[in-house]
Amino acid sequence: MAKRVAIVGTGVSGLASIKCCLEEGLKPTCFERSEDLGGLWRFTEHVEEGRASLYKSVVSNSCKEMSCYPDFPFPEDYPNYVPNSQFLDYLKMYANRFNLLECIQFKTKVYSVRKRPDFTATGQWEVVTLREGKQESAIFDAVMVCTGFLTNPYLPLDSFPGIALSTTDFNLSYYFHSREYKHPDIFRDKSVLVIGMGNSGTDIAVEASHLAKKVFLSTTGGVWVISRVFDSGYPWDMVFMTRFQNTFRNSLPTPIVNWLIAKRMNSWFNHANYGLIPEDRVQLREPVLNDELPGRIITGKVLIKPSVKEVKENSVVFNNTPKEEPVDIIVFATGYTFDFPFLDETVVKVEDGQASLYKYIFPAHLPKPTLAVIGLIKPLGSILPTGDTQARWAVRILKGVIKLPPSSIMIEEVNERKKNKPSGFGLCYCKALQTDYITYVDELLTAINAKPNLFSLLLTDPRLALAIFFGPCTPYQFRLTGPGKWEGARNAIMTQWDRTFKATKTRIVQESPSLFASLLKLFSFLALLVAIFLIFL
Amino acid sequence: MAKRVAIVGTGVSGLASIKCCLEEGLKPTCFERSEDLGGLWRFTEHVEEGRASLYKSVVSNSCKEMSCYPDFPFPEDYPNYVPNSQFLDYLKMYANRFNLLECIQFKTKVYSVRKRPDFTATGQWEVVTLREGKQESAIFDAVMVCTGFLTNPYLPLDSFPGIALSTTDFNLSYYFHSREYKHPDIFRDKSVLVIGMGNSGTDIAVEASHLAKKVFLSTTGGVWVISRVFDSGYPWDMVFMTRFQNTFRNSLPTPIVNWLIAKRMNSWFNHANYGLIPEDRVQLREPVLNDELPGRIITGKVLIKPSVKEVKENSVVFNNTPKEEPVDIIVFATGYTFDFPFLDETVVKVEDGQASLYKYIFPAHLPKPTLAVIGLIKPLGSILPTGDTQARWAVRILKGVIKLPPSSIMIEEVNERKKNKPSGFGLCYCKALQTDYITYVDELLTAINAKPNLFSLLLTDPRLALAIFFGPCTPYQFRLTGPGKWEGARNAIMTQWDRTFKATKTRIVQESPSLFASLLKLFSFLALLVAIFLIFL
Repeated sequence: MAKRVAIVGTGVSGLASIKCCLEEGLKPTCFERSEDLGGLWRFTEHVEEGRASLYKSVVSNSCKEMSCYPDFPFPEDYPNYVPNSQFLDYLKMYANRFNLLECIQFKTKVYSVRKRPDFTATGQWEVVTLREGKQESAIFDAVMVCTGFLTNPYLPLDSFPGIALSTTDFNLSYYFHSREYKHPDIFRDKSVLVIGMGNSGTDIAVEASHLAKKVFLSTTGGVWVISRVFDSGYPWDMVFMTRFQNTFRNSLPTPIVNWLIAKRMNSWFNHANYGLIPEDRVQLREPVLNDELPGRIITGKVLIKPSVKEVKENSVVFNNTPKEEPVDIIVFATGYTFDFPFLDETVVKVEDGQASLYKYIFPAHLPKPTLAVIGLIKPLGSILPTGDTQARWAVRILKGVIKLPPSSIMIEEVNERKKNKPSGFGLCYCKALQTDYITYVDELLTAINAKPNLFSLLLTDPRLALAIFFGPCTPYQFRLTGPGKWEGARNAIMTQWDRTFKATKTRIVQESPSLFASLLKLFSFLALLVAIFLIFL
Repeated sequence: MAKRVAIVGTGVSGLASIKCCLEEGLKPTCFERSEDLGGLWRFTEHVEEGRASLYKSVVSNSCKEMSCYPDFPFPEDYPNYVPNSQFLDYLKMYANRFNLLECIQFKTKVYSVRKRPDFTATGQWEVVTLREGKQESAIFDAVMVCTGFLTNPYLPLDSFPGIALSTTDFNLSYYFHSREYKHPDIFRDKSVLVIGMGNSGTDIAVEASHLAKKVFLSTTGGVWVISRVFDSGYPWDMVFMTRFQNTFRNSLPTPIVNWLIAKRMNSWFNHANYGLIPEDRVQLREPVLNDELPGRIITGKVLIKPSVKEVKENSVVFNNTPKEEPVDIIVFATGYTFDFPFLDETVVKVEDGQASLYKYIFPAHLPKPTLAVIGLIKPLGSILPTGDTQARWAVRILKGVIKLPPSSIMIEEVNERKKNKPSGFGLCYCKALQTDYITYVDELLTAINAKPNLFSLLLTDPRLALAIFFGPCTPYQFRLTGPGKWEGARNAIMTQWDRTFKATKTRIVQESPSLFASLLKLFSFLALLVAIFLIFL
């Protein structure tokens, strides 16, 4: 009989997990607490407990060709960076295409996942769920946890002396966590302080600046800011995330990589001149993705500030600045913590924001590898293909086709990671910029024999090999071969730029003939020499 | 007795004209139709007849160091690109600093300006004004017209078949000229079409895209888009507008300049891939300044479209596209025409959007040069220093210190211009990109002996000479010497970058030591060679 797998959550990783189970002939049952699929991508006007919450204007940070499921490209007329409502539509198309809906039980909260008494022998779990007030229990051969990491807001009020006192005196004013943020109208004609320069904090500050009287954006350590519109207007990740660049970055020492990255980042705008340069370049944080921030700074609409020293009645004092700045609203874009309320601490332990998971997936010390956590990772690349590959690998292990290394080796890997990465979870971003996404996914692909072999491809299909090595590392590469191979992968790779341009080339233009341009190039070089000669004559 | 000068309008050019008259010992009386100074820079919630109208979010296109009056820098804590309310404050500071207010009669509309019967001998004018319903008349020795060119909206409805018919059937829908636009709220959840890709049209489309359901931006010929945040984040005009670059551009043939400019413009984003590349590169239009447009296109919030073929009941059809697109609101950002309602056609004739003005200032055929038009020009640089220099030159002529060439020569210059520039007024933009602003202002400065002599400066003050030639051509250069010389000019030039950075460096950052960076540069180059070697091994 096919193994029964319980999947918790129908976000992007939950959906991928269902599909991978079906592909491998397992029998998935997916429990979704809310009334619909999509996880964080389903925008609602009100925050729902236990589900990540979006603001209305959220747009994907990874472009459509880089952030699709490996065997399901976005429709070609989708914009390159996908607004949340369209992203949700895409997830629904995916669920329909692969008949995932019939495996989902909506409005069903997972109450507990416990090892069965005979776990050491069977590896089975008892899953207790709550549905419309009714408790149910069932036995599963395996569990895939896909609950994500953006549900528990982290609100470090202790670090802000005076805030508790001052809010009682505020009249119109208040503070809230970025999770509560939905629309910018609340900022109209207010003085706003946003604390924290992650993607949310930066988005919120920029959005507020269109309406607010004044917007301060406070960052303790500074940050690199990247635009979606990268070199020559190509999507940033299609330029940045290539196997060629990855190999290149990985073969250089870290200080040089950091220096090269700094040079690259500063070519858009000099981060020192904009008060943003990251202080600790060794422990580089995740770069922030925002197209508008420098434009808002240079027009005085957003003011970058250091960390907050003190919150007063209707104002704040920043570190290193004597002046008190009036503030009406404070937004804490201070991130999230995560936990697994339905799991015993002996199964997965979360310490200092780190879960003891081998390859970010399997609890390192369980006697049977029958529980996998999918999508608990923040790659610099997209979470969709990462989660899909994690699920593909995990399902092969749940099925018993491939084996995990001995517990001791797994524990060592986990401890090593904890040591190297003092803060945050998932990949550390100083590493992420170098090894990140591609290296991590390749490891998983190698384990299931699904990594495309560039050398043999170079002989059999050189065009494809070159596109894979020098072109953007699009997810289709991950399903070119191995279990779950997609027949359309090659074609998807060869047409990835067509779909990219289709989205922006909405007006037909005449391009200048390139021969003429080349001739001009040559001629202008000569003329340039003459011109320089004339100027300095 | 000091000559009496009537000045019409208290916009940026009107204020400069008052000041230049006072400097030269003339007696200016300035008539302002509305209740306050500032011209187009004074935002009001409702459009006022006869005065240019701003939308709430307007920010200057030229940065504060490039667009100030030559002897009055913006306060150092002003942002680099100045929002309209702060710009108005600056104009008021200027008026206070130089006691201009006492020369202004507010709420006084100029009804007519007519040559006196003895004009051929005296050059005098009879100015009839209307104030609180009371008509007054006075004699002036000279007149300076500073009414600008953004008051008469151009609404080419004839070119849009179907619009007259369809609007009668629209319910919630309507069309209006960009002049009527104030706030983006009207676009909430609507399908919006903006026609015309000047600065206003592009601004409005981008602003609408934060609220609207869909935004189409229609352009017939395409356009170059520049970001205020230019190379490495420096203000675009401080990089682009240097005497060095100007000399360089002027010494190359036009096709090469166009090619170089195209290369430069495409480095931010490839205009062909975004459907924007200008079709007729010979008759290049003014580049559009917008920091957000490509980011809005790549996220699908703004769709670039060709010209409109037909307007239907609740939709439009674009040229070269079969699909009908639903549209609720149409914004005509189709520009302005101008005229001089208080002037006889025999004084200034406007034909095909061109006024017959020598150097854009003096009517070419008047027997006495006692009427000057100030600020009727669209330089790629800022209008403030241009207007100030025009006024300085014009006042010297009104005073009789310097003379205009014979009428025939002036008429020839005007005709030549008309021939070369089939559309638009002011400087033609294909030319503007090459010769523009600096060349034009230098011509006027030379005539009043106020152009800084770079060669002699190189001997006496080489630091200043280098800053003038290689640095941004800031307005302070125009008042370094000659009549109206400003003692603070040298210092203002040497500190222009300090004021620029002061505005964005609102958080103290540690900059990395440059020696280390240089060493790293050297080392990384070596390592790069090794890496390339290793990759291709």
